[in-house]
Amino acid sequence: MDIFIEPIGRLINEFSKLPGVGKKTAQRYAYKIIGMTDAEAKHFAESIVYCKQRVKYCRICGNFTEEEVCDICKKRDPSTICVVKEPKDVIAMEKLHEYKGVYHVLHGVISPMDGVGPNDIRIKELLSRIDGNVTEVIMATNPDVEGEATAMYVARLLKPLGVKVTRLAHGIPVGSELEYADEVTLSRALSERKQI
Amino acid sequence: MDIFIEPIGRLINEFSKLPGVGKKTAQRYAYKIIGMTDAEAKHFAESIVYCKQRVKYCRICGNFTEEEVCDICKKRDPSTICVVKEPKDVIAMEKLHEYKGVYHVLHGVISPMDGVGPNDIRIKELLSRIDGNVTEVIMATNPDVEGEATAMYVARLLKPLGVKVTRLAHGIPVGSELEYADEVTLSRALSERKQI
Repeated sequence: MDIFIEPIGRLINEFSKLPGVGKKTAQRYAYKIIGMTDAEAKHFAESIVYCKQRVKYCRICGNFTEEEVCDICKKRDPSTICVVKEPKDVIAMEKLHEYKGVYHVLHGVISPMDGVGPNDIRIKELLSRIDGNVTEVIMATNPDVEGEATAMYVARLLKPLGVKVTRLAHGIPVGSELEYADEVTLSRALSERKQI
Repeated sequence: MDIFIEPIGRLINEFSKLPGVGKKTAQRYAYKIIGMTDAEAKHFAESIVYCKQRVKYCRICGNFTEEEVCDICKKRDPSTICVVKEPKDVIAMEKLHEYKGVYHVLHGVISPMDGVGPNDIRIKELLSRIDGNVTEVIMATNPDVEGEATAMYVARLLKPLGVKVTRLAHGIPVGSELEYADEVTLSRALSERKQI
């Protein structure tokens, strides 16, 4: 006799596919579903299908959108392009309410270890967006090995096109303590120090 | 402009209803769904509805089942009843592969603070199961204030019916260290010490 009856086992299995969710957490989620009303559970399920059906990628920047072209590409200053790895990085930038330009989502970074080369991410699409109107490209890939390598690679392709390429600053996080900064970060903060 | 487009925002909102899931985690789950194939997302959604539709409560013990009466009630020794708070506690016991009796799920514990009295949980149903064939009732509610109070309350009702009522032992968890045991647990372990 299985410990879980089949419908519960199946749902636990589905929840286990979510990132960071193990059997135990999936079990808790399944029990929560069972405890919902029929209408609530149905609404939950419908939201999944609805989201999957409605959400597409913007033809220009690669961010999530419900239409052909996203609202950011439609309405904002196209002279500055901020290049990020994933759509969730767009959210992180948007939360600042400071950046007024548009985005370009690469949908990955160059990572030879994982078999991801320059042609596997949206670099060609980025190059095709560079015309006389684009004055700056901000490389906002993650500050890890792959993110840095991708930023360098893209920068080398863009510079001959006469566009300014910048990178987000590295340094000690605001509000943290020197003592807890890792050595690489502290070293970068030192070498990139600024006159005050 | 909202940071999330509507279908994503709606799905994040649904995932946030799961226990222990905040906005950030819900966002990660939503992105995972978007990254799935249409078939995978549909299967996920269907599992939710399927589980909710199929799973009922056993008429006898109150555990999850797909039928009128669960497999445990149908096949196992009915002379011992293990009383637990929730269906997930049945799973915890079943993982031992040691217990051969049946269960009774109270679906809650007595908790005046939360307005839960003896009539709000399945105590009457437990009493109606006590006949000449039941020799022991094991109270396996959680070792917290409500669980203890419920165990004591039920024991007082059962004893006049001539049935043996037992409680899971308290003490230091196996494999842990004395130093880290809390005072109440250590005190119980001392007062309930056994000759070796």
